[in-house]
Amino acid sequence: MDKGSFVRCCPQPTAPRKSDLKILDCTIRDGGICNDWQFSPNFVRTVYEALRDCNVDYMEVGYKTQEGYFSRENVGPWRFCTEDDLRDVLEESSVKISTMVDIGKIQTIDIPPASSSVVDVIRIATYAHQLDDAQKILNHCLINGYETFMNVMAVSTLDPKEVDQFLDKLAVSGVHNVAIVDSFGCLFPHHIEQLVKKYRERLGPSIKIGVHCHNNQQQALANSIAAIHAGVDFVDATLNGMGRGAGNCPLELLLLYLNDSRYDIRPILPLLESFADLKEELRWGYQLPYAMTGHYNLHPRSGIDKMRNEDRNQVLTMFDTFAKRHNLTKRKIV
Amino acid sequence: MDKGSFVRCCPQPTAPRKSDLKILDCTIRDGGICNDWQFSPNFVRTVYEALRDCNVDYMEVGYKTQEGYFSRENVGPWRFCTEDDLRDVLEESSVKISTMVDIGKIQTIDIPPASSSVVDVIRIATYAHQLDDAQKILNHCLINGYETFMNVMAVSTLDPKEVDQFLDKLAVSGVHNVAIVDSFGCLFPHHIEQLVKKYRERLGPSIKIGVHCHNNQQQALANSIAAIHAGVDFVDATLNGMGRGAGNCPLELLLLYLNDSRYDIRPILPLLESFADLKEELRWGYQLPYAMTGHYNLHPRSGIDKMRNEDRNQVLTMFDTFAKRHNLTKRKIV
Repeated sequence: MDKGSFVRCCPQPTAPRKSDLKILDCTIRDGGICNDWQFSPNFVRTVYEALRDCNVDYMEVGYKTQEGYFSRENVGPWRFCTEDDLRDVLEESSVKISTMVDIGKIQTIDIPPASSSVVDVIRIATYAHQLDDAQKILNHCLINGYETFMNVMAVSTLDPKEVDQFLDKLAVSGVHNVAIVDSFGCLFPHHIEQLVKKYRERLGPSIKIGVHCHNNQQQALANSIAAIHAGVDFVDATLNGMGRGAGNCPLELLLLYLNDSRYDIRPILPLLESFADLKEELRWGYQLPYAMTGHYNLHPRSGIDKMRNEDRNQVLTMFDTFAKRHNLTKRKIV
Repeated sequence: MDKGSFVRCCPQPTAPRKSDLKILDCTIRDGGICNDWQFSPNFVRTVYEALRDCNVDYMEVGYKTQEGYFSRENVGPWRFCTEDDLRDVLEESSVKISTMVDIGKIQTIDIPPASSSVVDVIRIATYAHQLDDAQKILNHCLINGYETFMNVMAVSTLDPKEVDQFLDKLAVSGVHNVAIVDSFGCLFPHHIEQLVKKYRERLGPSIKIGVHCHNNQQQALANSIAAIHAGVDFVDATLNGMGRGAGNCPLELLLLYLNDSRYDIRPILPLLESFADLKEELRWGYQLPYAMTGHYNLHPRSGIDKMRNEDRNQVLTMFDTFAKRHNLTKRKIV
């Protein structure tokens, strides 16, 4: 399936990867954090059609959220993903449709049986300390016929022992897919290699492992590649890397890298044209404050807040503040 | 010298590197391609002072060029780097000053003895097929007391045998430092690892090896890191990754990654503030056309030309054109 590489100088122009590696696009879900999910139905339909024609395996189209948790005035429809809204933009196709749920913002009653839903996949976003609550949602999803993913966020903030503990719980949870989630864009390829090994050892052979990277230190694609070489089963990406702060692994770069005949990059290229204006408006991508939050293993909101303030250019103060804050808070997620 | 890492989840938070690894900043030289080296003396002085205070090992301040090769109306002073212009902005310090020379655009008479020059290092940029001419310049530089570097450009376009051939010539050339140069931003970490091994084997233990990366596929820092782990002696970087097209390895990310007490990132942070406006004007950084030229192993000018044309948004056409062009020209440097 590998179409080869244009690199001429190296005896091994391509590197190992699973032949059935899957791609999950989360442009609308994770990119939606940039604009509070206020995409028009037409835009979401266009993204869906491009991903379908590209033959991407999964499209994560937003979050399912308990009605009332957010005001509908403040967030767009893709923070709720009602069946009606989804049916308005999606058709039957080979693309599996995923919605994310956040522990604490969802109840089992909000998730109908898969047989009556457009949604194929529920992806549960949880912190390690919420895993008992996550298991309840997971059980509901399994009984109701969903393919399930678990994203244990901000793994970079946990001690190795804490990682072992949540992995051991996940190993017997019934979940189908687990992503290594670098929420803060803190990790580098050698970390990813260690984590893939650990996740595989602890989760056993039957749970699929993937990776979800952020680009604070321009490592989102490099970390995804490190994970691919280390044998992961799926990779998350977004169009033009759209996502909060520094953004995500760009789907187009991932597709160019894989150069895999199962996927066709051409259908997303015209769509990416429209992303230039969107990027100008929403301003995701590499910026020094996000590099600093990544380096200091801090939540990107610290950098985003600074970018929105009038003193946003005082990067030296910011650097010193982050350094100090890191020292004060290194034992908890900030 | 390693200050450690803020990553908590991994047993080995940092990765191996040479304790005497050197950093070469080429902001004015390679970044200057963005604005034809039309930086004010004050700007270059500010960059110099920040790099000096940061304790960067080398600053490449521009090119030495045969007078008359370019019209002074079209290019700024840092395309020529006369001794007077250099003395106006530099002081005596521990930072070694480098200027690049392009084979075909320089004669030996343009390079005075090192003892009467502000310049410590001459870095020769050459294509593999120009190596005989490069050797003549190199001999002149060695006799005249310079530390010498050789950048054999666009290694990704050469066959493994062609790489072996130029390395075997360099091994006996007398040159002190050789960079692996990914001119087209085409390479990935696994290529870099192979090349570092090959360069080391062919060049022997006494020639220092480094890496010069471009960011077309967001791999400039990741490739630099792969090279560092593979044991290179020096790394090129620029402030905010300033450079033609997608730009270079960002110095600030390299410094954050190394987290090495020999360097102090703080002096460059206020300077990086001023780069936001500069970047807005000169527009280096990740863009789809540069990703495509990188993927297809093509010179970035193909992408830059497209970006400047009115049809710049026709990325699908561009993709198909590049694909076709690659197939037509894959045996020569384009």
